[in-house]
Amino acid sequence: MPVAAPLPVVLDRTDDRPLYQQLADQLREAITTGALRPGDPVENELALATRLRVSRPTVRRAIGDLTAQGLLVRRRGVGTRVANQVMQPGDEVTSLWDDLARAGRSPRTAVLRHETGVTHPRAAETLGLPATTRLVYLERIRYADGDPLAHLVNWLPPQFADLTDTELGERGLYDSLRARGHEPVRGRQLIRARIPTGEQRRLLHITRADAVLLMLRHTVDAAGTPVEYGEHCYRGDQYTFSVTV
Amino acid sequence: MPVAAPLPVVLDRTDDRPLYQQLADQLREAITTGALRPGDPVENELALATRLRVSRPTVRRAIGDLTAQGLLVRRRGVGTRVANQVMQPGDEVTSLWDDLARAGRSPRTAVLRHETGVTHPRAAETLGLPATTRLVYLERIRYADGDPLAHLVNWLPPQFADLTDTELGERGLYDSLRARGHEPVRGRQLIRARIPTGEQRRLLHITRADAVLLMLRHTVDAAGTPVEYGEHCYRGDQYTFSVTV
Repeated sequence: MPVAAPLPVVLDRTDDRPLYQQLADQLREAITTGALRPGDPVENELALATRLRVSRPTVRRAIGDLTAQGLLVRRRGVGTRVANQVMQPGDEVTSLWDDLARAGRSPRTAVLRHETGVTHPRAAETLGLPATTRLVYLERIRYADGDPLAHLVNWLPPQFADLTDTELGERGLYDSLRARGHEPVRGRQLIRARIPTGEQRRLLHITRADAVLLMLRHTVDAAGTPVEYGEHCYRGDQYTFSVTV
Repeated sequence: MPVAAPLPVVLDRTDDRPLYQQLADQLREAITTGALRPGDPVENELALATRLRVSRPTVRRAIGDLTAQGLLVRRRGVGTRVANQVMQPGDEVTSLWDDLARAGRSPRTAVLRHETGVTHPRAAETLGLPATTRLVYLERIRYADGDPLAHLVNWLPPQFADLTDTELGERGLYDSLRARGHEPVRGRQLIRARIPTGEQRRLLHITRADAVLLMLRHTVDAAGTPVEYGEHCYRGDQYTFSVTV
């Protein structure tokens, strides 16, 4: 486990703001500026209280506020860390690959299954195709900085049977669809919270003490042609949908 | 526990569609038309297979498909039921009260706490107010057809200090804000999945085997004035965000 580096927090007792808030503000600033990076450990309550000469409730309140805001994550047996939050701007059709790249995280894909000629009546129906249509089936794990973040299952119309494992490993699916003249531009997403199944726990390196965000999405290209239907499962501690309404 | 009424399912062995799909289609139809209502139990696998003279894997696949689509929910020790899904159209600012009424569900509110003069620097900051502003603090449980669905925590600017428990019990918060000329029309929502805390489990009648959807939202009225900041926690088995992108 990496050791938490002491942060240069300066508390000013003549400041109008209470001490817990000064501490919370400086931790928030450190996260925003990247002085603290996603996954970094935060000094424990006692160490921080001793070093800054404040009470433990003061430290607890600052850390509690940042945890409630989703900037820090408390994990039993691991301590408090900077949240590995990946934000999806839920009001645009974006690819997780691009969301990760934009956040300065390093994306990687493992292709678990990639089959053509697969029938799946529900997926076909969602894509507006006959139930017996032979679809392309994709199952991938998306990693961020080496850690599994999401389990991605997708069905695509037969015209995408030429997708290769090599390109799927090197970039996001949306990049490949774009390159074929079918960029997903509109769609509908359903977002739910679930306890992970055994398979999801194994694939995402999580336990029953973690929740997952489930997203069902179908998208169409600019011409209104359906391009993909996906069932994506994200680690709840690392993923946030952000929707402007 | 209510007993599942046998549904008038008719399987046609001369039909092109496989049996599991005919069964899934008819169950889906029964849910859509209201023949099966939210929370209704579904006959168990063995009973359905025996009655319809099909194999258990056929029934299992039909129920599995509807479960994956979120129309049915399997609960250990309770059996399979029609999901109590409440949809929030995540691309508009809507009130849960109105979403429930629109879905034909009967909403009710219990006010747990209602205080004025409360300081909460983070909420004040989100509302664009000085950290020491005395806010209105609201904590409510929203019920749907008598069952707890969501734990709603809100902070409001001091101008809403005249809200009464009576009106909060009789209608949604947004109705009250609208009546005061400050209808929330725009905002930003963050959506996360979490394991419920002990308090959330107690308030929402759920266990550690359920996940919750957490929504942080702040909204402004047509003039751009901040009207509320909320931290809402929904039962994961009963609530879905739906976002058109």
